[in-house]
Order: sequence, then C-alpha cells, then structure tokens
Amino acid sequence: MNLKSHSKVPLYEQIYRYIKADIQNGRIAYREKLPSTRALSKHLEVSRSTVELAYEQLLSEGYIEAEPYRGFFVSQTEELYRLEREKPKAMAMEKPGKKYRYDFSPSGVDLRSFPYNAWRKLSKDVLMDDRTELFRFGDSQGEYGFRSAISSYLHQARGVNCSPKQIIVGAGSDYILMLLSMILGREHRIAFEDPAYKQAYRMAEALSYDTVPVSLDKSGMKVTELRESGADIAYVTPSHQYPTGIVMPINRRMELLRWATEEEDRYIIEDDYDSEYRYKGKPIPALQGYDAHEKVIYLGTFSRSVAPAIRLSYMVLPGPLLDAYEERHDFVHSTVSKVDQMIMQRFLEEGYYERHLNKTRALYKSRHDALLDGLKPMSDIMTVSGENAGVHLLLTFRNGCTEEELIERAEKEDIRVYGLSDYRIRRMGDERPTILLGYANLTEEQIREAVKILNRCFGDGMRQGGAGRMG
Amino acid sequence: MNLKSHSKVPLYEQIYRYIKADIQNGRIAYREKLPSTRALSKHLEVSRSTVELAYEQLLSEGYIEAEPYRGFFVSQTEELYRLEREKPKAMAMEKPGKKYRYDFSPSGVDLRSFPYNAWRKLSKDVLMDDRTELFRFGDSQGEYGFRSAISSYLHQARGVNCSPKQIIVGAGSDYILMLLSMILGREHRIAFEDPAYKQAYRMAEALSYDTVPVSLDKSGMKVTELRESGADIAYVTPSHQYPTGIVMPINRRMELLRWATEEEDRYIIEDDYDSEYRYKGKPIPALQGYDAHEKVIYLGTFSRSVAPAIRLSYMVLPGPLLDAYEERHDFVHSTVSKVDQMIMQRFLEEGYYERHLNKTRALYKSRHDALLDGLKPMSDIMTVSGENAGVHLLLTFRNGCTEEELIERAEKEDIRVYGLSDYRIRRMGDERPTILLGYANLTEEQIREAVKILNRCFGDGMRQGGAGRMG
Repeated sequence: MNLKSHSKVPLYEQIYRYIKADIQNGRIAYREKLPSTRALSKHLEVSRSTVELAYEQLLSEGYIEAEPYRGFFVSQTEELYRLEREKPKAMAMEKPGKKYRYDFSPSGVDLRSFPYNAWRKLSKDVLMDDRTELFRFGDSQGEYGFRSAISSYLHQARGVNCSPKQIIVGAGSDYILMLLSMILGREHRIAFEDPAYKQAYRMAEALSYDTVPVSLDKSGMKVTELRESGADIAYVTPSHQYPTGIVMPINRRMELLRWATEEEDRYIIEDDYDSEYRYKGKPIPALQGYDAHEKVIYLGTFSRSVAPAIRLSYMVLPGPLLDAYEERHDFVHSTVSKVDQMIMQRFLEEGYYERHLNKTRALYKSRHDALLDGLKPMSDIMTVSGENAGVHLLLTFRNGCTEEELIERAEKEDIRVYGLSDYRIRRMGDERPTILLGYANLTEEQIREAVKILNRCFGDGMRQGGAGRMG
Repeated sequence: MNLKSHSKVPLYEQIYRYIKADIQNGRIAYREKLPSTRALSKHLEVSRSTVELAYEQLLSEGYIEAEPYRGFFVSQTEELYRLEREKPKAMAMEKPGKKYRYDFSPSGVDLRSFPYNAWRKLSKDVLMDDRTELFRFGDSQGEYGFRSAISSYLHQARGVNCSPKQIIVGAGSDYILMLLSMILGREHRIAFEDPAYKQAYRMAEALSYDTVPVSLDKSGMKVTELRESGADIAYVTPSHQYPTGIVMPINRRMELLRWATEEEDRYIIEDDYDSEYRYKGKPIPALQGYDAHEKVIYLGTFSRSVAPAIRLSYMVLPGPLLDAYEERHDFVHSTVSKVDQMIMQRFLEEGYYERHLNKTRALYKSRHDALLDGLKPMSDIMTVSGENAGVHLLLTFRNGCTEEELIERAEKEDIRVYGLSDYRIRRMGDERPTILLGYANLTEEQIREAVKILNRCFGDGMRQGGAGRMG
C-alpha cells in the first residue's frame, strides 16, 4: 500500500479503498484472513484506530466479516454491488431550436432574479435537521404545514376561500391535471377558451377528454356559447386570460358561476397561474372567492413565480370532489419531496415570497413600461392589448401584413415574436394579425434595442404589405 | 427610528423595515418625498451607504420610486403584495393509526441509515452554482446526464439493456404509471399477479383499466392462466415477487416473453422495485435484459432504496412506446426538480449509491439472519418462505390458527404483523394462513425480543387453536 499522507482523502479511506479493490479484483480471496488491526497499523506506520476505521467501513459495506476471537475474513463478495463509473454515453443531440438575438417568449421568467441566497439558506436549514421524519413517506395531499402556508397566502393575496384540507400539492400543473382527471372521471366534456392556454388543452386531449372550444368576447368566455356547447366543465383563466390578457369582469364571473349551478355535475376549473403580476390597480380576487356552491376547482403554481424547475403546483378542491378524493384516491403518493415542500413553506412564511413578488413585479413593470414606450411610434399601425398585467402583451396590426409575414420579418432581424394563431384551437380565417411580445426574460436595454428594430421592420411592412395587397 | 446596532439584523435592513412599515401603514403617504440619503444618514448617525442600501431595497421592491434630480417618492403601494403571517391554522387531526411496540411493516425502510451527510453535501454543491440553467424548465424526460447515470447503473447492476433516451424520470411510481397509461391508452386488459403489489393494482383500477388477477405457482405468474385471461398487458415483479418473494426462474421468464410476442400489442410491465437486496447468490438480471422483441416496460425507483420522501422513479420504454411518447406526449413537463435530479446523479456517479446499497444490504442481512434464527423454535408449526431477498419474509402456519387469529394474538402483545390476505385480489377460501414480517425498520435487538414473544403467542396458538378446531 502506498499511502499519501498529504492527500485530501483521509488515511483510513485510502486503506479502505486499497483493500476493497484487492477484494474486488480477487487479489485477496474469499475466506482469506485479513491482517490484524495491530499488525497492519504497525506495518503501515499509522495509528491503530485508523486501521480500525477502515475495517469498520469494509465491515459495514459487507466486504469483510468479523469472527469472534478469530479476526476479519473476506466475504462472498459476488453478492455485493460493484458499480463502476462508465464512460459517459454520447451526449444527447441538442434539441433543435434556433437561438435568437432577442426572444420575446411569452412564457419566459427572469431567472437572474431567482432568490439564490434565500433558497440555498432555506435548503441548508431544512436538511440540517437530521430528522428521519424528513425522509419518511409524506402526506398524500402534501405536508399539512405547507398546505396551511398556501391557504394563508391564497386567502391574503388572491381572496381564495379555503382550508388547508382542501389543498392538494403536486409536482407541476400537468400532474395536477392528471390527478384531477382521476377524481373527476372521464365522462365529461371540457370547454376551453379559444384562444387558449394550449398546455392544459393538450393535457385534456391526451387524457382522452371530449373537449370543445368556446369563443371569447371582451369579457372572456362567452357563456351563451358555453351553454350551447354541451360542456359540463369550463376551463377558464379569469384573472388574466391566456394569451389575450382579458381580465374577466365581475358580471361575467357571476354569469359563469350561475351556469355551473344549473346542473349538479358542472364545474369550473379556474387556472390562476398568471395572476401574480399586475401593474395597475389592486389585484382582482379569484373567482373561487365568489363561489357559494362548491363549483370552482382552483389551480395555482409556484413554478411560474419562483422558477420553472421548481415543481410546485396545487389545487383547491370544492367539497364534493374533496370527498371523492378522500374516498378513492388519497392512496396516490405525493409527487413533491418533503424537502422542497418545507423549503417553500419557509419561503412563504418568512417573508421571502412577498419580497420576491414585489421585486420581480417592479422589475417586470419597468420592462413593461419600456416596451410600451418603445412601441409608441407604431401606434398608427397597431393596437396594444393585454397590458397592465402578466409578462407579455399583444399587438394587433392593421398594416396589411399577415401574422406569418410579421413573424418572418422579425426573424430576418434575428428577433423572435409569437403569433396569436398558435394559441387558437379553431381557425376562422377572419382573425386580425396579432403577435405576442413577452418581456420577462429581456432587460430594459434589450427591449429598447429590439423594439427599435421592430418599429423599422413592421413600419416598412405597412407600405410594402399595403402595396402587395393592392397588386 | 430606533436602530439597534447590536442586532443580528443589519442596519440597512432595519431602516428598510421601518420605512416599509410606515408606507404600508400610511404614515408616509403616496407621493410623499423621502428625506435625502445624506440627510437621513446624518440624522440616524449611520453611513450614507447604509441608507442608500435601504433605499435600493425599497426601490427594487417597488415601495418607492426615484425621480431624477428630485429624489425618492412613495409609490402607489396598494398594488404591492403584503403578506402577513397569519395565525397557523388549527393542526390537522393526527391520522388514526396505532403505534405498536414492534411493527413488522413489510414496506419499511431503515431511515437511520439515510446518508444525510452525503445528501447534504451534494445538495449544497448543486445549489452552489449560481447557474440560471438549474432553474429553467428541464427536459420532459428528465435531464440527460441523470438518465445517462441511471442507464449505466441499470446496465451494471440489473443487466438492463437500454440507452438514456429510453428512460423517463418521474416523481414516484404512481406518477410513472399515470404517464405510462397516457402512452398506452385505455384500451387494455392488465393482468396482475395474485397476491399482488396492491398500490399498482389500485392505480390501474383508478385509471379505469380492465384488470384481471392471475394465480401464481412456485415460479410466479401462471402463463397458461394469463393466456386464458384475455389480458394484453402483464404486470409482474420477476426479481422478487411482491409479496410472496418468488424469484421467477429463467424458463418462466422465457415463457412470459413468448406470450408477449404472440400478439403485436402485448406488453410486459416489469416492476423491479424491490431488486436491490439479495442475501444469497448473485443478483438475477432483469427480465428486460432477455427481451429481444421490445416487449418489456421496465419500472424502477430510488424512493425505496434511498428514502421514500425522495420522489425519484423511472421507466425504460421499448422502441414502439418510445416513438408514441415522443410523438404525442413529450409536451408533459417533468415532475422532478432539476436540483433533485442532479443530486441523485452525483450520488450515483460518485460512488455514494454503491456504498449506500452495500451498507444497507449488510444491515438488512443481519436483521434477516436474526429474524430467521429467532424463528427456529416455531419450525414445527410453520414454514418460512420469501427469504434470501427483499426486506420481509413470509410464515405459513399449520397450527390451526386462522390468519386473523395470528394477527390478533400478536396485536395483544403490541406487535403488528401483516396478513397475506391483504395482498390477495381474490379470496378462494382455501388459502393457508400466512403472515408477513418486514424487518427493515427494526434493529436486530428489537427483532430478537419481538420474535421471542411471537414464538410464545403463536406456539400457544397451536394447542389452543387445535383444541378450538376440535370443539
């Protein structure tokens, strides 16, 4: 053995590794006796306790066995795990996807403002407690303390009226919809806003639901059309319709709630995922807060406001569905680790979330303002909508360009903008060309630069596009 | 302001809190001008940079606004979040469930051997990198590096033959089954081993599958009965049938694979969740390793071998199902946070998992041996089976007692044992009374003490029970 006294690896660990390798390679055979700790320590010129520590490690991992009064012997090691680090597999092909100089993605989040220090500190604190409790199976619904913190947040910030026992925590909104579909069963027709939040629509389709698109007017989903659609569940985003940014006014909310009470099995799914950022006026309370007949299933998430890789979403179930869940589905284990639940709980309770929201809100507001300001030169060829909330806005053009042309022109300048068509379920053919500009992931300076270019290339569009139409 | 210079809270933070509270309470009104940093620092006898820091914080959270050449003004703060710590909700009722002096739960895990230090260190390392990458949306299937580490582990330890791109990571086995059901579609009849791993059976029922129980012989699922059942999917646990502990021999494995190839849409779900612990002979390679016709869906988990609260499971899809997934379902976001994936990846790659497995294996083996040894006095009234692997064994009694009687007698001594009936899907009426003893969560000493009591109360049973039958 060639021990290195100045190595970062402690001496006992070096001895352990030598003997383990010798056993694994068969240089020390099965049943062979190891030298006594006294003899080996003398031979290696290390303390006896160092050798004892190495033997203990080998013993605890099953490489050797102790026989009283006789010493240590090599075990039948073919039963032991031996995992070698394999050469890393050839790297995955990069997902195709061009990088743009400026990408106005509406689903962006400013990750530079992620509260690294707070998250790290809380994570360390939570793991500090050597409590085995932390690693035992948790509550299927999510830890009670975490649910309690969520219900308190929902009450104060969103006007949601619920107790912690109505909340079920899950790893992301897609999973929450899977679980909800188990509770609701398959026999439903779900109405989606058109244009819609496509991820939820795709989930419903993949879960084999009958779906039906319902048009919007300036107040959101048209309840007359909903009534005619034969749907018994309405999936809506009242606080900030995605992607149009419509804030559903109170009378439409009431109309929707009335629709739900007309038949026993009707429900409203209120997806409140984008409610955190408003730049004008007080936040509008959730639809759930007005629900007197246990008709609203409220969905929320921290993935969007904290970071997408943090998989933390939840739903608030109304009474009848909570009963169904408790009766038949609470055997399904939680998908969120207790560690993450406890970090987020403290993040909420210790004021970090309030700060984080206000900070990112201020950040997004200045980007929002910079974008609106930069777009002024185009006010004669387009109309802005969906401003004052969320992290994107919509431009509807009347410069003769089609949506595709607008997107192409921006692309030529290495700028990515998004067409509203991508969010439509049906194509009527008479839609006005509308593009989405998300600003969460760009700095104010980047926004100003990019908008200057857009003003030029879309402004040109008016003349050229106009001419093209004439010809 | 009453600043405390010896507080743990930094001075700038104290100033920030004072002003914030004053704004929130309306003591400083909207549009009111704040004192200049120079004036306030002089007044408070702190450095000017301290005041600047406090103002910056207020600015970044939107409480105040800066106007060039004019100073700082209070913002329209009703738009800001203000979350107060509410009184904690009344605690949840304790889930009913008696605590036993000795609980031989077969689903236990020794949490005292959880590698706290390693986990904490890796968690710290992973969070150390301030890379925004870590908090961006991840790969739907799971991070490539993590999947690569899993495939390397599966190859070496389980003889599974797969590339990282066949692996999909998910937060727990229940979720994996939900996702798999989306890929497979509903139109299947699934055969379950009887007795079965009930959690998977319950999931299949909750996902509205047609299920059918298939009996076992000493080699596992009877393929003749499977063929007659009309099922097109067989859910099996070949490396260690749960709960009987049967290890499926190679000829039965081949027979099962042959069944699967007879029709195009037949699949085998191999749940390898309990394969880590074997106390005699080499681990048996997974069924998947013998599959030449892309018929096996392999399920695995780290939740069982590391800790239940760590929600990390995965499946390996055969070619045709992988194609279906990539075409239609890879829009579903991953349910596991990137942080957890990276911790587990390093845990695998840096040798911690190998050590952990060998350590817990040695631990469980000694408990297994102690239990077997302690049970010897009862060898005339019962037969042990399912030993040599897993973390529980089965005792089949011929002392005239029914299963219920055995469980009751143990309960009187404050010992919890588990009846095999709980795992049966059908009741035939001719089952021999069998109880399960799990030993993962008891120390050797506890096992010895508890078994001594069991020997007495079950031994008595022979005479009394026998007499009872006569009467």
